[in-house]
Amino acid sequence: GITSLLANGVYAAAYPLHDGDYEGENVEFNDRKLLYEEWACYGVFYKYQPIDLVRKYFGEKIGLYFAWLGVYTQMLIPASIVGIIVFLYGCATVDENIPSMEMCDQRQNITMCPLCDKTCSYWKMSSACATARASHLFDNPATVFFSVFMALWGKQGLSGKNTGDDPRFIAEYEARVLEKSLKKESKNKETDKVKLTWRDRFPAYLTNLVSIIFMIAVTFAIVLGVIIYRISMAAALAMNSSPSVRSNIRVTVTATAVIINLVVIILLDEVYGCIARWLTQIEVPKTEKSFEERLIFKAFLLKFVNSYTPIFYVAFFKGRFVGRPGDYVYIFRSFRMEECAPGGCLMELCIQLSIIMLGKQLIQNNLFEIGIPKMKKLIRYLKLKRQSPPDHEECVKRKQRYEVDYNLEPFAGLTPEYMEMIIQFGFVTLFVASFPLAPLFALLNNIIEIRLDAKKFVTELRRPVAVRAKDIGIWYNILRGIGKLAVIINAFVISFTSDFIPRLVYLYMYSKNGTMHGFVNHTLSSFNVSDFQNGTAPNDPLDLGYEVQICRYKDYREPPWSENKYDISKDFWAVLAARLAFVIVFQNLVMFMSDFVDWVIPDIPKDISQQIHKEKVLMVELFMREEQDKQQLLETWMEKERQKDEPPCNHHNPKACPDSLSSPAPSHAYHGGIL
Amino acid sequence: GITSLLANGVYAAAYPLHDGDYEGENVEFNDRKLLYEEWACYGVFYKYQPIDLVRKYFGEKIGLYFAWLGVYTQMLIPASIVGIIVFLYGCATVDENIPSMEMCDQRQNITMCPLCDKTCSYWKMSSACATARASHLFDNPATVFFSVFMALWGKQGLSGKNTGDDPRFIAEYEARVLEKSLKKESKNKETDKVKLTWRDRFPAYLTNLVSIIFMIAVTFAIVLGVIIYRISMAAALAMNSSPSVRSNIRVTVTATAVIINLVVIILLDEVYGCIARWLTQIEVPKTEKSFEERLIFKAFLLKFVNSYTPIFYVAFFKGRFVGRPGDYVYIFRSFRMEECAPGGCLMELCIQLSIIMLGKQLIQNNLFEIGIPKMKKLIRYLKLKRQSPPDHEECVKRKQRYEVDYNLEPFAGLTPEYMEMIIQFGFVTLFVASFPLAPLFALLNNIIEIRLDAKKFVTELRRPVAVRAKDIGIWYNILRGIGKLAVIINAFVISFTSDFIPRLVYLYMYSKNGTMHGFVNHTLSSFNVSDFQNGTAPNDPLDLGYEVQICRYKDYREPPWSENKYDISKDFWAVLAARLAFVIVFQNLVMFMSDFVDWVIPDIPKDISQQIHKEKVLMVELFMREEQDKQQLLETWMEKERQKDEPPCNHHNPKACPDSLSSPAPSHAYHGGIL
Repeated sequence: GITSLLANGVYAAAYPLHDGDYEGENVEFNDRKLLYEEWACYGVFYKYQPIDLVRKYFGEKIGLYFAWLGVYTQMLIPASIVGIIVFLYGCATVDENIPSMEMCDQRQNITMCPLCDKTCSYWKMSSACATARASHLFDNPATVFFSVFMALWGKQGLSGKNTGDDPRFIAEYEARVLEKSLKKESKNKETDKVKLTWRDRFPAYLTNLVSIIFMIAVTFAIVLGVIIYRISMAAALAMNSSPSVRSNIRVTVTATAVIINLVVIILLDEVYGCIARWLTQIEVPKTEKSFEERLIFKAFLLKFVNSYTPIFYVAFFKGRFVGRPGDYVYIFRSFRMEECAPGGCLMELCIQLSIIMLGKQLIQNNLFEIGIPKMKKLIRYLKLKRQSPPDHEECVKRKQRYEVDYNLEPFAGLTPEYMEMIIQFGFVTLFVASFPLAPLFALLNNIIEIRLDAKKFVTELRRPVAVRAKDIGIWYNILRGIGKLAVIINAFVISFTSDFIPRLVYLYMYSKNGTMHGFVNHTLSSFNVSDFQNGTAPNDPLDLGYEVQICRYKDYREPPWSENKYDISKDFWAVLAARLAFVIVFQNLVMFMSDFVDWVIPDIPKDISQQIHKEKVLMVELFMREEQDKQQLLETWMEKERQKDEPPCNHHNPKACPDSLSSPAPSHAYHGGIL
Repeated sequence: GITSLLANGVYAAAYPLHDGDYEGENVEFNDRKLLYEEWACYGVFYKYQPIDLVRKYFGEKIGLYFAWLGVYTQMLIPASIVGIIVFLYGCATVDENIPSMEMCDQRQNITMCPLCDKTCSYWKMSSACATARASHLFDNPATVFFSVFMALWGKQGLSGKNTGDDPRFIAEYEARVLEKSLKKESKNKETDKVKLTWRDRFPAYLTNLVSIIFMIAVTFAIVLGVIIYRISMAAALAMNSSPSVRSNIRVTVTATAVIINLVVIILLDEVYGCIARWLTQIEVPKTEKSFEERLIFKAFLLKFVNSYTPIFYVAFFKGRFVGRPGDYVYIFRSFRMEECAPGGCLMELCIQLSIIMLGKQLIQNNLFEIGIPKMKKLIRYLKLKRQSPPDHEECVKRKQRYEVDYNLEPFAGLTPEYMEMIIQFGFVTLFVASFPLAPLFALLNNIIEIRLDAKKFVTELRRPVAVRAKDIGIWYNILRGIGKLAVIINAFVISFTSDFIPRLVYLYMYSKNGTMHGFVNHTLSSFNVSDFQNGTAPNDPLDLGYEVQICRYKDYREPPWSENKYDISKDFWAVLAARLAFVIVFQNLVMFMSDFVDWVIPDIPKDISQQIHKEKVLMVELFMREEQDKQQLLETWMEKERQKDEPPCNHHNPKACPDSLSSPAPSHAYHGGIL
């Protein structure tokens, strides 16, 4: 077939032609032009997409992608609105928040323990006032409600089911099978039922497994590297003599580290995409569908790990295994595990998340989807100019359609487009508890994304071969998986990363007057500075102007005057139990509500399912009637013939001819539709 | 229609006739006889059921029930085998179990606090030796594995999907609509689109809601009543002077209470069934399907609450809110909350579960499914005998088929049969962690149940109207719901009812030499007998022969010599956190494994789905070819006619007649099947 001819290099490329030019003065009206004007420009962003036309021009699979993208974008609107409301609620209540008021209160005058060995000094609680106020924006009771809402949103909105397609075989598979059958033939002449068995595939599978594990390990190593960079950078900067440098340590370190993370993620994304493709090729899958699914699975796994590892680290690990003053935990013997900023880890998670999400979207959209294609075009244009002297310009203009289209980029599949959206869906749902504005940013991105993709398909790509598709395939399963994961991750973010549970526990178990007054004091443990181990005490402890005897740190531990000093206290276990109980309640509540919503709102709305049922019945009736008519006509006709022994239909009597019988095509058409 | 005629009493009954007699000497061969011999007797219990014949004789819906019952019973076989292995593992390791060895050790000589006020005395730890050994049978690490296994088993095995059926309207609904339309007509003459709206149904819905809440409250009240019975009975017996009565208090009380529970459950089951039917009737649902679904939903809810409330109480509430010695919790000011037996609550749960499950099955099978029908038959037979003198016997023999069948019980729907199985499925999956032999008992019951039901359908019921069905309908959803519930309930049973988690916590956090030695001592708190409140100290504390100063009780509380004596201790919170963590891990592990199994094993096996695809393609091809042939024949024929102007088919030339055209029925038949 054409596949092998292409593979052998007989043809350079095979592609359907575009309808014509999409712009220019003397271009006659065509579908491409219509799409360009009504779909592929930013001016129409508020309109529905002309999905039928897209489907007609590009085929079902691409039509389905844009339809899905449209639905997803539309679904982001309510999520964004609720997110904005939650954020505004946070802004409105920030001045009434007792814990942050207490932290900002200069009179409290709480001396905190140093956050690192030697170079760090004691610090005042009130200096963390700004971050405490900022973290209230994302860490308030409305966030819990929003998480439940988004978990339901993520589990509900995306329906569509996987069904079988016609298998389209891949040239490489056929080649391998042929090769194998030839080998076998030379052995025992049995050529029937040649398949690639498990044994043939084993080396490829092994390579796959090893490579994937290796690449996940690389990702982890890079994240660990960035952590070490942060720790050592902070230590180096702290030894700097300039006070302006020292006061901005945290900002400098965090900003540079996140940017490094971002760059690494974007670069590795491209690398992993190529590796996943290579790994799938050596697997030699049987059909194109299977190829695509395997590729998507691998690429998704790698990109997911790549994108989310730093975020997982900040959400669940950072600042949790630091030990306590006087007995800190070290990695590689000299680097102390880093702690979260005084405002809490949630703030840091929010910053990390927003920078990676926004940065990824902006850079990928601008650089990879606008910049690089533009540059490629420019290079091609310059090459063309150099090759063909200006007097040949007329000839260029009279080029055939296939020559014009040959200069366009070949269509490389929808995987990158879907992948971008799925990773975005992950940002929107997985950690939404820490960043309620994520849906808004996703919405803004997608409004641009739709038109950007449309422009690319209309103007910059060769027309793709139309492919039939019933649904979005494996992506649906991945979306469902992310939806499920989102529930449990949000439960953990709320209960372990935010201060929601400790606050509740304080309110109901310890608070004397039923308010949050005294919460900040309750969450801090005391440390006697004389218990510092050798060489870990701060170098210039006199920064504050008075001698420190007891400093405070955020943890639930026994005070220095207790029997088992610095042991984990009862409060720690009580709060932990409450956190875990919350996870169980949250997860099961969301699951129950999701099932309930499923039960109340059927997959297919009632009127549509009734419509479908009616149409089916009508179609069957129509078919039956037609067949009956046909039958009757035939019978009466034959009857007549027998009785009259005379031609019932001829040139002299054309009215008697059963013309309708010559076109039974409609009934075929129905059945094609039904089957 | 016939429905209204029946409703008006014009006809007494309408039913299809049986094929003939199923036994007797001179009975000719018929399907009923075949079913009776090959299906409806206990001798063939090891054989597969002749499902095709059942379906042919009783219709799809009943066929589907027996098919489902068969599959479920078959699925119980592996579950029973694993359950037996787990039980045997418990038996084999009972002598190596260190905690029960320590409890039985006479040398330990631990004095326990009295289990009730005044009348109870101190007791020796070693006297609970037997129950401790017994509870190891159900409370060992293998049980955890078994729970995971059964959770997966419950979520997997049951597939089948809900799809739409043709609506069959109910006479009452039509009557109500007619009534309403008449009323409306008198008002504004608009008769089109008359529907029962929300407003018409509101009183019925309200009645439903109130009744259901009331009946659930009744169930709770009864369970509470039984608890009070137990407490007061125990107190009364404890004051008895006979030592033999006093030594058997626990056994007597538990046994009588469980029997009361069982009787109440069985009686209320019948009552609730009737109430659910009545409630559904006043709702006036539109179609028969909707009627059935609403009835099932209500009946299931009521029977579920009825059957499982006492078990839930034992599993999660009994012995948990008892307070501590010296500060016990009282209900109604005078009844102390009851505690679990010294062997732990799991043992009691197991006893409760096995008695209710076995008792319910035995009584329902024997009494309701064998006894009562037999009795009814007997009564009918006696009546008949009294009415017709013996000389008319010959006439009786020559009775018409419809007269014979009229004497049989009318078919009352499959709901009771399904309900019984679903409640059993609940016993098998929900609390399987505490009773690994449940699947075995269910299996034994079902082997009998299949043949019992078969016998009933063949010999004792009028032949039911055949009803089309694609699946088991709402039962599938209920089964899925139970499957989901089972995961979380088993997680809680293992972590909160069994001692699995405290043992693990002891092993990894407290044990000095990595063994379980000292575990029993660790779980007991100390109480100073001088802290007993007035009137709660035991009356004759000298039972043991020495004066007791410190007694022990099972809880994690601070010792009398601590600062906050009898406060909940750190260990309590640590164990609680571990328990909750286990629930999260268990639930998510099972969910993940279940999804993974779903992913690896597709719903429809690959070869079957390929087969279906092939059949579809073949059918389409066949249809196309046939239509083409028809078309061609017609065309050639017409061509001939035009050219020859001569009859192509007449009495003299019959071979030329396109006979095949007179039977297009086959193509219709295919399409009926496909649509």
